[in-house]
Amino acid sequence: MLEHGGNIDLALQRFGGRLEDWIDLSTGINRQPYPVPPLSPRDWTALPSRSEIASLQEAARQAYGARAPIVALAGAQAAIQLLPRLWPPGRARILAPTYNEYAPVLRAAGWDVADVADLESLAGADLAVVVNPNNPDGRRHQPDKLLALLSGVGRLVVDESFVDATTELSLAREAGRSGLLILRSFGKFYGLAGLRLGFALGSAADIDLLAAQGGPWPVSGAAIAIGRRALLDRDWVIKTSARLERDSRRLDALIHSLGWTLVGGTPLFRLYDTGNAVAAQARLAAVHIWSRTFSERPGWLRLGLPGDEKEWTRIAAALAR
Amino acid sequence: MLEHGGNIDLALQRFGGRLEDWIDLSTGINRQPYPVPPLSPRDWTALPSRSEIASLQEAARQAYGARAPIVALAGAQAAIQLLPRLWPPGRARILAPTYNEYAPVLRAAGWDVADVADLESLAGADLAVVVNPNNPDGRRHQPDKLLALLSGVGRLVVDESFVDATTELSLAREAGRSGLLILRSFGKFYGLAGLRLGFALGSAADIDLLAAQGGPWPVSGAAIAIGRRALLDRDWVIKTSARLERDSRRLDALIHSLGWTLVGGTPLFRLYDTGNAVAAQARLAAVHIWSRTFSERPGWLRLGLPGDEKEWTRIAAALAR
Repeated sequence: MLEHGGNIDLALQRFGGRLEDWIDLSTGINRQPYPVPPLSPRDWTALPSRSEIASLQEAARQAYGARAPIVALAGAQAAIQLLPRLWPPGRARILAPTYNEYAPVLRAAGWDVADVADLESLAGADLAVVVNPNNPDGRRHQPDKLLALLSGVGRLVVDESFVDATTELSLAREAGRSGLLILRSFGKFYGLAGLRLGFALGSAADIDLLAAQGGPWPVSGAAIAIGRRALLDRDWVIKTSARLERDSRRLDALIHSLGWTLVGGTPLFRLYDTGNAVAAQARLAAVHIWSRTFSERPGWLRLGLPGDEKEWTRIAAALAR
Repeated sequence: MLEHGGNIDLALQRFGGRLEDWIDLSTGINRQPYPVPPLSPRDWTALPSRSEIASLQEAARQAYGARAPIVALAGAQAAIQLLPRLWPPGRARILAPTYNEYAPVLRAAGWDVADVADLESLAGADLAVVVNPNNPDGRRHQPDKLLALLSGVGRLVVDESFVDATTELSLAREAGRSGLLILRSFGKFYGLAGLRLGFALGSAADIDLLAAQGGPWPVSGAAIAIGRRALLDRDWVIKTSARLERDSRRLDALIHSLGWTLVGGTPLFRLYDTGNAVAAQARLAAVHIWSRTFSERPGWLRLGLPGDEKEWTRIAAALAR
């Protein structure tokens, strides 16, 4: 099994406490989630109809400012799982370090996979993968730089799982261009990762392939009802983006006093060089705050943002000890 | 797009009315669903943890009387979508007529697919598919007959999506035998198809393959919370099985008076030969009761069971007209 944030089982095993004692900052999931509206019996009982799925997809298209074909899937992860099967295996190049699911999923399906360190080295790939902004280091790529890659690769997958609070980086408006496939996550920014909802936008041919693989009922009735409402709620998006931006600076300020340095981040998570992440994680875990380490980068610690003021108080106290 | 039950969009387009006016009997989904318990915030907000997924799988194993490896997926349909990718394409043989998703999904992935009319003709297949009890005609196969097939095929997939009310037919206890893969649906018997939950049981090697394809978060937090509780509720299962059995005879009696003949069925749905299913469907649709026709069998009409007494009264009145 790969390392992931959200592995709160591990926190409990190693540091004790009950599930409800823990503040899980090991992911970039917004801890002030979109309020779950009341659901209708039909959301639970019926197979989602084509028009219900279409209306969710239309809401996402509107929210993302896109006009291209789109498909709803059970999370951006579901799109990643399907990716290697859409086209015959070839050369896949991944801008690294990044989200660690791409390489093994592609490799298992017979792709020749290698990490590259800069955008230019993606040239010549049959499938190029860029996460923008990047997880875990927050590295950002300007849309025009990414578009310039299109002529040199077979397909460019831009994973925008963490773009919602910095939409100026998004290529969603350009979706539909040949060779460009964009993945969006719903659960992170809206704080509802348990819902399993995400989207892919791209050319009609690619989206048709993904939709065929996803099958007739790719998402749940609850994902449709909640997703539709949340995606159309512009006020909430604006308020939330502003709060996350503010809170990410607040966390940086808190961390700065420890002597940890900011590697990078997005408004949903921050990556710090702590010198010794295992020790830093243990220090936070002693007061039941969970964080994400990276075995290949022993200094790195990733922290999501605390939710309410009680959580801020707890993390401030933990860091002051 | 394939024909499916639950295509209530089509009913509205062709026969009018509002969604809430319709009684949808076009599927075999139980219309007296398991009561949805209150959910915790974590069910919505968090990525499902490995131990939460494991506890759901353990509940399913208990409910199904199985000891074999098991994996939770987003509906039996999700397992069908993954099936063709688990092994190199070969000869797939499907006991037909049956659920219409198997053939196109396998064919699209390069399998040589043919329908066969009897169990014996599955011999020699790399992948043999039997739905037991069968959808739409309710045909039943005794477990020992199915087990006898194992030595003559590469893999035997037994789709038990409709077995919950007739568990004496289930091979779940035998799961784990080499070459046997069993699919179970949660949403039909428990009446919660919108949840997207199902399971596959089989050998460790096959279940590992499916789990890898399903990815780290194959089902939603709500599916875990509700599924776990429902699967462990033996009293509800016993009461529901008895009611469905009774109600299926009640529907047969009502239909008998029309001169339609019973082709077969399960306690979740009944298949009738109406002589002219398009006319029969229209007659029911005029009072906003939706049913399932089969273009290749012009007499066949499939009906799920009405839910509460109000629904029984409406269908009785419709049929008496």
